[in-house]
Amino acid sequence: MKLDELKLSKYEKESEISYSFGIFPTFELVKKQSDKIIIIILSSKLIISKDVESLLKLCKEKNIEVKYDDKTINRLSNKENCFVIGVFKKYQTNLICDKNNLVLVNPSDMGNMGTIMRTMLGFGLKNLIIVKPAVDIFNPKVIRASMGAIFSLNILEYNSIEEYLFKSTNKKYSFMLKGKNVLGQFTFDKRNVDLIFGNEATGLPDDMLNRGESVIISHSRDIDSLNLPISVGIALYEFTKNN
Amino acid sequence: MKLDELKLSKYEKESEISYSFGIFPTFELVKKQSDKIIIIILSSKLIISKDVESLLKLCKEKNIEVKYDDKTINRLSNKENCFVIGVFKKYQTNLICDKNNLVLVNPSDMGNMGTIMRTMLGFGLKNLIIVKPAVDIFNPKVIRASMGAIFSLNILEYNSIEEYLFKSTNKKYSFMLKGKNVLGQFTFDKRNVDLIFGNEATGLPDDMLNRGESVIISHSRDIDSLNLPISVGIALYEFTKNN
Repeated sequence: MKLDELKLSKYEKESEISYSFGIFPTFELVKKQSDKIIIIILSSKLIISKDVESLLKLCKEKNIEVKYDDKTINRLSNKENCFVIGVFKKYQTNLICDKNNLVLVNPSDMGNMGTIMRTMLGFGLKNLIIVKPAVDIFNPKVIRASMGAIFSLNILEYNSIEEYLFKSTNKKYSFMLKGKNVLGQFTFDKRNVDLIFGNEATGLPDDMLNRGESVIISHSRDIDSLNLPISVGIALYEFTKNN
Repeated sequence: MKLDELKLSKYEKESEISYSFGIFPTFELVKKQSDKIIIIILSSKLIISKDVESLLKLCKEKNIEVKYDDKTINRLSNKENCFVIGVFKKYQTNLICDKNNLVLVNPSDMGNMGTIMRTMLGFGLKNLIIVKPAVDIFNPKVIRASMGAIFSLNILEYNSIEEYLFKSTNKKYSFMLKGKNVLGQFTFDKRNVDLIFGNEATGLPDDMLNRGESVIISHSRDIDSLNLPISVGIALYEFTKNN
């Protein structure tokens, strides 16, 4: 496939393809979603380290095309220190049945989304439900912030919280400032559980108080709330603790 | 004082003054460090909300000068949606004796630093020790990411880890991937404790393994490590849990 024919242009939400910028996220792409890859582009400035050698070897094994093309690298990435780009077709995944899910309602920050994806993988939770409107998960900024963790996750998007509630049968734990149960002072169900978090600024709607259990992470009155990735990290730590 | 005389210029590390951008961090500045304030600058685009009214009232009570000046606002801030700037003299604080400290060795990311400051405040830990080289804590990006939490903290900087170790007599818990104690499976001392975290990329040097207790936060092998603010958040949650 010739790069010229692809006419690769800067990422937009409507694009059918997206990009992993940098060696680390691209390595994850090749390892976990190789069948979605169109091509791997390298910069002539790339220094051939051990990691790069491993990447190139894996691409060869998996029959993935690799090409040097400084012009395309510069056009697609804004950062001067980007030397590897993975070009891939955006894809849909299914949740793995009978597992626990993280549910993010209206997440709006790309950096937060990537950090949360990486943290999920760190605690072995691989099912992510996103309720729209929400950040575009395939934006390269999300991919980069996730350090490629996105390629290991199963992600399902719903158009509204009503649709999510209609379709979900899991036990629900809604993390809210008005939560009735203090994290660490009760025992979670361990299977078929949804851990639900709201938008960075507005949290979850009040009526989630009556949809299963509501949970608060205690904090001092000196701050309004913990930030979203910190809250998710603490919740996943506590939830997976005695597994 | 006339703004022209101040010749306010964009923040640099060497500057003797710094800026809080936005209503929320500026409110914290006025509440916690009012004696450091030179002036509060407002944009003519500022909408007079309840929060703004409270801020202006507090400035009046504390005899803090407030001035509209769009030109200065635009010159100092890059963001179009910044309508309030607090101008203050950078200051030094002392740690409160006989308290627990968070220790960050060579932290390098401004957003992480702000998030950690806010999280500390959320868990009631107000003493922060920073070992240089480190991010400039008074950079407006740190202040903004902290949402003003920086103005409630006591912060002490050391020039090297050796200086810190020489001067500190607190019980040390070093968070490391090679840590010997698993977080959640041991009981912390509760007083005169230092919780120590290393640089985002490199962690703590190995010889911290022998300076008190070393701690690991268990995570899956799918990721190299949890990110720094998430690790600090989880550690502070566990440390303050039964207080």
